[in-house]
Amino acid sequence: MVVGFEKAVSATKSVVTSAKKAPTTLSLDRIINFARGDPTMYESYWRQMGEKCTVVISGHNLMSYFSNAGHFCWFLMPELDRAIRRLHCVVGNAVVDDDRYIVVGNGSTQLFQAVLYALSSSYDPDTEPLSVVAAAPFYSSYPEETEFLRSRLYKWAGDAYSFDKDGAYIEVVTSPNNPDGAIREAVVNRDGGKLIHDLAYYWPQYTPITGKADNDIMLFTFSKATGHAGSRIGWAIVKDVEVATKMVKFMELSSIGVSKESQLRAAKILEVISDDCQNSAPDKEENFFEYGQRLMSDRWEKLREVVKRNGVFSLPKYPQDYCNFIGKYTDPSPAFAWLKSKDGLNCDNLLRELKIVTRGGTNFGVDSNYTRISMLSPNEEFNLLLERLSAIQGTIINGNN
Amino acid sequence: MVVGFEKAVSATKSVVTSAKKAPTTLSLDRIINFARGDPTMYESYWRQMGEKCTVVISGHNLMSYFSNAGHFCWFLMPELDRAIRRLHCVVGNAVVDDDRYIVVGNGSTQLFQAVLYALSSSYDPDTEPLSVVAAAPFYSSYPEETEFLRSRLYKWAGDAYSFDKDGAYIEVVTSPNNPDGAIREAVVNRDGGKLIHDLAYYWPQYTPITGKADNDIMLFTFSKATGHAGSRIGWAIVKDVEVATKMVKFMELSSIGVSKESQLRAAKILEVISDDCQNSAPDKEENFFEYGQRLMSDRWEKLREVVKRNGVFSLPKYPQDYCNFIGKYTDPSPAFAWLKSKDGLNCDNLLRELKIVTRGGTNFGVDSNYTRISMLSPNEEFNLLLERLSAIQGTIINGNN
Repeated sequence: MVVGFEKAVSATKSVVTSAKKAPTTLSLDRIINFARGDPTMYESYWRQMGEKCTVVISGHNLMSYFSNAGHFCWFLMPELDRAIRRLHCVVGNAVVDDDRYIVVGNGSTQLFQAVLYALSSSYDPDTEPLSVVAAAPFYSSYPEETEFLRSRLYKWAGDAYSFDKDGAYIEVVTSPNNPDGAIREAVVNRDGGKLIHDLAYYWPQYTPITGKADNDIMLFTFSKATGHAGSRIGWAIVKDVEVATKMVKFMELSSIGVSKESQLRAAKILEVISDDCQNSAPDKEENFFEYGQRLMSDRWEKLREVVKRNGVFSLPKYPQDYCNFIGKYTDPSPAFAWLKSKDGLNCDNLLRELKIVTRGGTNFGVDSNYTRISMLSPNEEFNLLLERLSAIQGTIINGNN
Repeated sequence: MVVGFEKAVSATKSVVTSAKKAPTTLSLDRIINFARGDPTMYESYWRQMGEKCTVVISGHNLMSYFSNAGHFCWFLMPELDRAIRRLHCVVGNAVVDDDRYIVVGNGSTQLFQAVLYALSSSYDPDTEPLSVVAAAPFYSSYPEETEFLRSRLYKWAGDAYSFDKDGAYIEVVTSPNNPDGAIREAVVNRDGGKLIHDLAYYWPQYTPITGKADNDIMLFTFSKATGHAGSRIGWAIVKDVEVATKMVKFMELSSIGVSKESQLRAAKILEVISDDCQNSAPDKEENFFEYGQRLMSDRWEKLREVVKRNGVFSLPKYPQDYCNFIGKYTDPSPAFAWLKSKDGLNCDNLLRELKIVTRGGTNFGVDSNYTRISMLSPNEEFNLLLERLSAIQGTIINGNN
């Protein structure tokens, strides 16, 4: 049965005839999937942490719907609220002053939809739906998440660069951007615009932390911050209490809140990270972000080398910057590689020939000569990727379209 | 700040002047909330179970988005799938043959919306939205859950008894019904109708189990089955693979699946219940459903006594039936008491005078002389309820409107 989220491998017609004969270790029979951003590469870090992050939950714990009755976000556990604020203070990547409201969600996916509702629910349903835009290349799920229920409140209006309608609109600003890792600002900048800042990747392992983000609505997710995608925990930091309250209303109607088991565990893990980051002992271990930054830098270096050598693709170049958290200049090492075929070939199809599944450029609102590759796979799969990309060296005959 | 889900106590103008002077133990200053169905009364049962249901989760567990890649419901953990099927077999309340598809959700609330999407997403968006109806009194959240995103796919069309449009429609059949505990069947019964059976309360503690439900789409929730509302776990049992697949698509777009921590814990707890139910040792303890059925019966007996004595209200009468699970005739003991004021007074307002917060009949599509009272509160609160209801005895002057 075909699974939507994990894109099935479709047959491609083109053939890369000049690919070197694969050594037996290459396991060319095995399809490797880099289409999704499943952050399983962090598993080994958490495994080596032993019991420090273990949670124990008895049968009678966490039973009520309520986590904090009377609080505007009644399903948010106070310990998670505290852990989120503390981590942002420690990392220095977002303003979390007491006048900012935190809303927890079932991943930032649900919170994105909660924001669309919050920003549009007071509009007259007889007027046109509020336009939602993002600069291409944009995260491939925004259009479908905005459109699938065919709401009269909001609609997907495509690439922010070509948006020219008057009146109210929402622009999603993803920074660092998914898929291309670019640091971004709003591009429409017109009256009546509301901004959603998706900062899922604004963490030290992906990009230098150059200052505290201080936007009206900021989305973060446990999945990309620490790699715990299975917990489905995201959070929004919101300036306007009315927006935050409407988001809570959305969460209430959509799922009556968020798993307490996941909240408890997220709180625990975020606290352990903060503890480790604040540990000033001379013999202290590498903290999670230092580990992640080192691992990602290493992967990017290897990938750039292979890409340079085979001459078929190019990768974006990112300026080095001073990371306040790491305390030195670092290169960005995004969670995704935004690969471009130099010859204008269909990049996704080309890689499928090598049984490498990626997510092609058209999913992100741009041409098929781009494709997105997850950099968050387990080591073994990442090494297979490098091997297979190395094997493309040379001329490509019967080019993809 | 006013919390939506936990209805705030609003000031009422009417006065119940004849209420007996409250004894000091009555704590009349304290507002007690019976508006919500927070099933906290089961906590003491799970506490006495000790470590039997404890789950231990290490930092590196449950990290991937995927629980079962390749399975149509790729985020459903196989152990939860098994535990759900086993429990239904043990209780005998639903058909879970191998050709039935199980979809897990963030509570049955999210699954209800997934079904609306699944049943309507192939409709032409230029045609009128699909009508969604339920027989009054219906669960107070159905209208808002259907309407809040102002979808062009579906719309709330009110009481099924007065629905007279031709063409396709969805009828939600809640049985036992929330709020009134009635055993229900579809009422529209016309061509083009699709049914959603919300069977949240079809468990032995609430009603005699008279047979295995075998409907096209059946919704259940961990919250009401075992009392674990904070976990946000619900499940659907679906006959048609296309409907189930579209529901999975909804879950993917809405929240990329469901917390694995919650799924793991739900699986554990459901297995413990099944084990206990199948334990045939002569000295075995009461199993969860036997405990729940005894507790609920006891509460209903006490409530009926108080209501009979004060003469102000009436309660529905339910026919006794043979419960296949308990193995004898039992009285239904619904999760909510559907209280009616004999004199046509506003029942909700009347009780607010006694600082008892309930959910008034108008929320359920009927008159204000009805109100819904949760029967799932902790013992102490339930006893306060009985005391306060006893105190209404006598004449009511300056009646509510």
